[in-house]
Amino acid sequence: MKRSAPGQIVKLGLLQTHAATVPRSNVARTLGLVERAAQQGAQIICTQELFRSQYFCQSEDHENFKLAETIPGPTTDAFQKLARKHKVVVIASLFEKRAAGVYHNTAVIIDADGSLLGSYRKMHIPDDPLFYEKFYFTPGDLGFRTWATRYGKIGVLICWDQWYPEAARLTAMQGAEILFYPTAIGWHPSEKKAQGEKQHGAWELIQRSHAVANGCYVASVNRIGHEVLSSVGGDGIEFWGQSFVAGTSGEILAKAGADREEILVVPVDLAQVDQTRTHWPFLRDRRIDAYNGLTKRLID
Amino acid sequence: MKRSAPGQIVKLGLLQTHAATVPRSNVARTLGLVERAAQQGAQIICTQELFRSQYFCQSEDHENFKLAETIPGPTTDAFQKLARKHKVVVIASLFEKRAAGVYHNTAVIIDADGSLLGSYRKMHIPDDPLFYEKFYFTPGDLGFRTWATRYGKIGVLICWDQWYPEAARLTAMQGAEILFYPTAIGWHPSEKKAQGEKQHGAWELIQRSHAVANGCYVASVNRIGHEVLSSVGGDGIEFWGQSFVAGTSGEILAKAGADREEILVVPVDLAQVDQTRTHWPFLRDRRIDAYNGLTKRLID
Repeated sequence: MKRSAPGQIVKLGLLQTHAATVPRSNVARTLGLVERAAQQGAQIICTQELFRSQYFCQSEDHENFKLAETIPGPTTDAFQKLARKHKVVVIASLFEKRAAGVYHNTAVIIDADGSLLGSYRKMHIPDDPLFYEKFYFTPGDLGFRTWATRYGKIGVLICWDQWYPEAARLTAMQGAEILFYPTAIGWHPSEKKAQGEKQHGAWELIQRSHAVANGCYVASVNRIGHEVLSSVGGDGIEFWGQSFVAGTSGEILAKAGADREEILVVPVDLAQVDQTRTHWPFLRDRRIDAYNGLTKRLID
Repeated sequence: MKRSAPGQIVKLGLLQTHAATVPRSNVARTLGLVERAAQQGAQIICTQELFRSQYFCQSEDHENFKLAETIPGPTTDAFQKLARKHKVVVIASLFEKRAAGVYHNTAVIIDADGSLLGSYRKMHIPDDPLFYEKFYFTPGDLGFRTWATRYGKIGVLICWDQWYPEAARLTAMQGAEILFYPTAIGWHPSEKKAQGEKQHGAWELIQRSHAVANGCYVASVNRIGHEVLSSVGGDGIEFWGQSFVAGTSGEILAKAGADREEILVVPVDLAQVDQTRTHWPFLRDRRIDAYNGLTKRLID
């Protein structure tokens, strides 16, 4: 399998960090990480999910709605300014207040000239012990999308979306060469010993599989830190970090550790998407005449 | 995550072997492997893809259509007899002659009383150098299916199908607790050094991901042996074996070697399907209102 096209190298920047109790400090630190990533040559930079706060979905508390912002709003503005300054694309995950009583788990996509290209609103919303997202987030109504940024066509999906091959497929079918997954996932400390390796393994595996199935890159950005919220108590969540980039055959190209702040700057060759899809022509042979059942809940 | 239900253990039997030049000897050897697997306690037994012959799709040769059989036919009959004798479910992969000019790559599903439950006709047909299947096999017209066998609800997909999350999903949505993939895949010897590890890695990964996405078991049965067909010449294909069973979180439960005949007898607990899907409730949250695009070729 020789290279059929000249390389088209783009550098991705994944920002893996912890979240402190004060949103202002998280925004400041994350803006600082964007600057450092840009200085290291990153061209498309992605934050972890809901980086502005600790993971408040550990409980259902109306007070937490105060953490939301409009889009555009002050945090979007700050990232737009930085994107323009450094000529970088930024994907920033925000808690969006759309209207009274309508909130979303949203990512903004900012182009390298600072313009707001659009938003992705998380489509699949989890609800599990300590991950009570259905209380906060109205399921996205913008569908699955792709944006032609200055440095490449990208798709953005968020955390729980990563378990759904449908989401990755629908995004890739619109031309995305890289799928970004801002994420906040970790271990329940009481389960870690018995289930931790299996849980993390499944998480990494399913995302790598989206790269395989679609012949595209996948970049997953997760937080670190053991967050026990004072208003909730208990064991909290130990976020497992390990942000990574997978190549077009699902191979791991770069991976961060589980417990320290890291900026992953990862060069990827967009010409490889065409190369891989030509040699593994899965998209050619989809049986679209037989996929109608996918819009059903079950076939029973 | 404690076990919520009493175990429901079923033993799977995966038959990994080579193919000799004479079909009769392959059938005899495979029938012998079924007997041995049954004696070792296997209850649902699956052959590799097209076990009856060497992998003739290395060229487009009209002579090879003579390898096909009707279903039912002599090979189906032989397996039905053995299934009845040993009270085992058998999945046998056959080259089906359906009518003059209409051939399929088909698997028959035989219940433990020897009755023919039905057939699955390979839906996704590859066409790659040395894998010229589109010449031989009409794409399946029976869709994705599930069978309630004596020992569990199973789905059967074949080789190239394994790259399609849609196929796994549609089968699991019909209740399959185990997805079987009879397979014939290997390395082009000239590519093995540079690409071999990545190719095999992607193959194993995508199938394990179907277990994750659907919270079910996956059993993949591949052939071994370096087949250089006298009518074709060249380097042939080095089939990579490594048949495996993945658990409901995608973890590898058992795996065969790359170059020797093996019977994998693997106990799995069907109660784990319910357990896993309750703790990782992906099926609950599918956005079926937003999946219409999956029946398109591309969204462009």
